[in-house]
Amino acid sequence: MTTTPSAPAADLTTDSVQSDPRSDGLRALYADWAEILATTPGLTTRLFRSIFDEWHQATREPEDVTYREDTVGGVPGIWALPLGADTTTVLLYTHGGGFAVGSAASHRKLAAHVAKALGVTAFVLDYRRAPEHPHPAQVEDGVAAFTALRERGITDITTIGDSAGGNLAVAIPLALREQGLPLPTRVIAFSPWLDMENSGETLVTNDATDALITVPLLEGMIAGVLAGGRIDPRTPLANPLHADLTGLPPLYINAGAAESLLDDATRLAEQARAAGVDVTLSVVGDMQHVFPFMAGNAPEADAEIAAIAAWFRA
Amino acid sequence: MTTTPSAPAADLTTDSVQSDPRSDGLRALYADWAEILATTPGLTTRLFRSIFDEWHQATREPEDVTYREDTVGGVPGIWALPLGADTTTVLLYTHGGGFAVGSAASHRKLAAHVAKALGVTAFVLDYRRAPEHPHPAQVEDGVAAFTALRERGITDITTIGDSAGGNLAVAIPLALREQGLPLPTRVIAFSPWLDMENSGETLVTNDATDALITVPLLEGMIAGVLAGGRIDPRTPLANPLHADLTGLPPLYINAGAAESLLDDATRLAEQARAAGVDVTLSVVGDMQHVFPFMAGNAPEADAEIAAIAAWFRA
Repeated sequence: MTTTPSAPAADLTTDSVQSDPRSDGLRALYADWAEILATTPGLTTRLFRSIFDEWHQATREPEDVTYREDTVGGVPGIWALPLGADTTTVLLYTHGGGFAVGSAASHRKLAAHVAKALGVTAFVLDYRRAPEHPHPAQVEDGVAAFTALRERGITDITTIGDSAGGNLAVAIPLALREQGLPLPTRVIAFSPWLDMENSGETLVTNDATDALITVPLLEGMIAGVLAGGRIDPRTPLANPLHADLTGLPPLYINAGAAESLLDDATRLAEQARAAGVDVTLSVVGDMQHVFPFMAGNAPEADAEIAAIAAWFRA
Repeated sequence: MTTTPSAPAADLTTDSVQSDPRSDGLRALYADWAEILATTPGLTTRLFRSIFDEWHQATREPEDVTYREDTVGGVPGIWALPLGADTTTVLLYTHGGGFAVGSAASHRKLAAHVAKALGVTAFVLDYRRAPEHPHPAQVEDGVAAFTALRERGITDITTIGDSAGGNLAVAIPLALREQGLPLPTRVIAFSPWLDMENSGETLVTNDATDALITVPLLEGMIAGVLAGGRIDPRTPLANPLHADLTGLPPLYINAGAAESLLDDATRLAEQARAAGVDVTLSVVGDMQHVFPFMAGNAPEADAEIAAIAAWFRA
């Protein structure tokens, strides 16, 4: 028997824990959805919403969290209230789903895991969705909820979201800044989807490893939120890659290394840093779009949320 | 102007509160599903499950309840744990959905509302579903979970379920009795679906008022759970209307007066009473199949759950 004196460096630079089969749960769910999308002719927005509400299946029920439905600033949603949490600090959570699908219900458990790890509460918005309500309805709902939370006396608010909701987590403070209103304390974006022009290189280079996101899927979502082309895809509040990011609060961004939208995360990080924003970027090996969805089920998701908690408390 | 000295008696004998638009929420959801079922060619079991997992949308998030995933007797599920609840008394909840669709996730909030009103905990089973797993897989899973709860030292167990899960709530104690095992303390069946021969008169007489249940829909579900006709539709543990109900614990049954499966509830009540069982039957005017799904949103559902709590404590 011989020993290998040094392992290949590549084996040491990945964060992945591929030996744990639970880490594959989100990819399996996405592959199932992708097959449905590919094989169901004439899939309606209505059925699209049914399917994507299964997103919650990737997430384990977090223990020791209660929930409460509410309407904040005219926008319905669900409070996630971890037992013993600091109720003066709020995560304003905007869910993903291309501005068209997903809901407070599909993201309840994910938001609750994050709130619990951070020791705070979260309000998950059911903002108005496209195509019935194109841009800027989603940003307006976020601003309305943020303003109403401030009127309730809550001053420590973090905007947070995933995918299209990660876009909103950035666009909401940009809209607040435009209106001269107070900003959130921090911004957190999980796998943000920002680029309404589909210009990212990873749309091509990660196409083989991303189990869900494709350019045709994004084109459909863009048509919905940008009113069939009537809204410019470089509108800064719809596409924050075309916004002046100066003055944004500390920003935490993550993405999976395997996902087609990785470039949206890295470009946002670069541009925010260039604008003087305090940016933390976490890219985790082998992970899919919005991998924190596997909270409670996969070690990568739990480690990522623990890293966010450490950043949040710093 | 004249006054009418006496209103028609029929106006006084209904429990309905039709002036409250929230009471129509479940009917609206069912009508939406019925349209999808009628207009989507080749709807797969997979998509059927997506759609029926929306059942939870009828139910408001109950406050002051936490959740925990668990596996009990080899069967996965979700605990609903109201704050301050008696953890020595358990509702073993079997969800509805024709033995084929529905889940612990779709019924989490409903079970939590009932558990909270009763001051106890609930475990909502994700039993094996048809057609992949025909009868008696569902009954076996219920017996396994019941037995495992007993082994955990819990002696006060109520079997409870809705629709096909209401069938299981009755079939599980019948199977336990066959095996000479301890029985549940009580049985609760919401709009139980029992008749695998589609012989109920209300399938015809309430066809116009039931927004969801049709004979063709039931035929599809029967084919699934009875293995395409290989299992006799009069098998007592699959169709408790053909079982000897002697020795069942106190039994609470409800149904909506507008539903096609009303006859299943009334026949179960009659036959159980004839067998000497302590039966309470609640039929509520104008209500649809499993109307307690509107818990937290409609007064009829909340009143029904309050009535069950009073019965439970008596």
